[in-house]
Amino acid sequence: MAASSRVEDEAFVTLATNDTYSLGALVLGHSLRRANTTRSLAVMITAGVSQGMRHQLSEVFDVISVVDVLDSKDAANLDLLTRPDLGVTFTKLNCWRLTQFKKAVFMDADTLAMQNIDELFEREELSAAPDAGWPDCFNSGVFVFKPSEATYQSLLKFAISHGSFDGGDQGLLNLYFNDWSSKDIKRHLPFLYNVVSQAFYSYLPAFKQFGSEVKVVHFIGAVKPWHHGYNTATGQVEETGGGGHDQRFLQLWWSIFMERVQSHLAPSVAGERQVTHPT
Amino acid sequence: MAASSRVEDEAFVTLATNDTYSLGALVLGHSLRRANTTRSLAVMITAGVSQGMRHQLSEVFDVISVVDVLDSKDAANLDLLTRPDLGVTFTKLNCWRLTQFKKAVFMDADTLAMQNIDELFEREELSAAPDAGWPDCFNSGVFVFKPSEATYQSLLKFAISHGSFDGGDQGLLNLYFNDWSSKDIKRHLPFLYNVVSQAFYSYLPAFKQFGSEVKVVHFIGAVKPWHHGYNTATGQVEETGGGGHDQRFLQLWWSIFMERVQSHLAPSVAGERQVTHPT
Ligand SMILES: O=c1ccn([C@@H]2O[C@H](COP(=O)(O)OP(=O)(O)O)[C@@H](O)[C@H]2O)c(=O)[nH]1
Ligand SMILES: O=c1ccn([C@@H]2O[C@H](COP(=O)(O)OP(=O)(O)O)[C@@H](O)[C@H]2O)c(=O)[nH]1
Ligand SMILES: [Mn+2]
Ligand SMILES: [Mn+2]
Repeated sequence: MAASSRVEDEAFVTLATNDTYSLGALVLGHSLRRANTTRSLAVMITAGVSQGMRHQLSEVFDVISVVDVLDSKDAANLDLLTRPDLGVTFTKLNCWRLTQFKKAVFMDADTLAMQNIDELFEREELSAAPDAGWPDCFNSGVFVFKPSEATYQSLLKFAISHGSFDGGDQGLLNLYFNDWSSKDIKRHLPFLYNVVSQAFYSYLPAFKQFGSEVKVVHFIGAVKPWHHGYNTATGQVEETGGGGHDQRFLQLWWSIFMERVQSHLAPSVAGERQVTHPT
Repeated sequence: MAASSRVEDEAFVTLATNDTYSLGALVLGHSLRRANTTRSLAVMITAGVSQGMRHQLSEVFDVISVVDVLDSKDAANLDLLTRPDLGVTFTKLNCWRLTQFKKAVFMDADTLAMQNIDELFEREELSAAPDAGWPDCFNSGVFVFKPSEATYQSLLKFAISHGSFDGGDQGLLNLYFNDWSSKDIKRHLPFLYNVVSQAFYSYLPAFKQFGSEVKVVHFIGAVKPWHHGYNTATGQVEETGGGGHDQRFLQLWWSIFMERVQSHLAPSVAGERQVTHPT
């Protein structure tokens, strides 16, 4: 479905290893389309994604790339994060193998573009925004990179010899691109390109000052937008189980989901969503 | 008490508007001395600091500068932070008037040097570490600056016309030095020079990886180390009222306090501390 005005050799890339994260990928893809991106959209999936979902993904993504699951097998470190599920994010490294693209922007499936962000392609590898928890590290939910088989092999070798201090891709990538914090300010994306939706609570005045300029919101943590409910009668998200995400961002995620994703889902997949129907 | 090896025209500068914050200033001053700083130590105080405390401060600080209280009078913004007390931090701006120093490092009275940090004087104005809550802003608890009456006047003018988006000095300084996040990576101090002691909780693996290199810890928030108790029988801090500060940092603060400050305090001031005596 590539349009003629598309920049074919640059892409936004995401990852989904199962149908649940695929819902995030779909919303992300639609958020980029509605912001009129001129770049290609690519999604990496693994064997865990159903045929029905693959079909659905193909309606918004130009490229679907089936990749192997890489697991950091580093249970001890992951325990630190109380996120034993994150080992799978090592699968992310496969994005460096998408060498049909000269440059790409990786975005987690739990991110959402609030506006056109094509200007990110002016940045060089590795550009990323600071992690709000420990800002000498970048957050690996959004980063600009240059696909290259050599870099992929080098990353794999590095992963095996050095491991990852957090057991996930963020710890690994921060060790590998370890001059990010000190070398070149151009590699620092503004925080606005990867705003954790909980930032609202950590420095409210900054959020009030800069919040309207948010370009990408990132629903980090164990509770994702798709874990919440949605009341089709009121059109409101009904938060279940916390997560601390900002209500306005959740609402936008759900409105894109309901408008562009939900209605096209195969019944078996749609049934998994905690959509609250009016009684 | 300036030693002959002292670099007289460079200083660490802090601020205390009352006897309570003076306790923090004393511990900070001692932490810099025990790390063998070669720079001068200066403290700005206001009329609210008692004579006994001034005497005590003079035993560790080379310069005591009495300044006026500046208040941002911006109650609405401060309400956002639920910290109506922060207006007084505008008083901080007086540090630019300490023109006997060619270069200086401002440090909040609730910070603690874990090791020698004299290398900070190689940086230029305005250098500071990212704020963990909104990392496109710098945290104004530790910053390198160049005293100058002209800059002081310009800051005051700016404060009056633009205000501060958080009602405190951090919001003001970030608006004034607004190219900090995008212009020069050298102006980005590593987070290690201003680690909020709650960082422990926000990204535990990073803390485990880099925590031993912490240079300065910053006890941000309403609950300060001096609000906790200390059991003189066990030598342990007894946390009261939360604050979420890391136990090891609190313990170090208190051991410096007990060893170098408490024993020298005038009885009236010492009595204010919540020191738990053995029963
Ligand atoms: O079971 C999983 C876990 C993660 N991911 C992908 O890896 C990214 C990083 O994981 P997550 O966003 O859950 O981590 P967080 O941002 O919360 O630290 C996700 O956004 C997905 O793109 C996935 O496909 N399946
Ligand atoms: O009543 C006050 C409040 C603040 N301060 C000074 O201003 C700094 C900034 O305030 P604080 O550290 O309480 O703010 P936080 O770092 O918690 O945001 C303190 O460290 C002190 O140096 C002071 O002297 N008296
Ligand atoms: Mn994520
Ligand atoms: Mn402080």
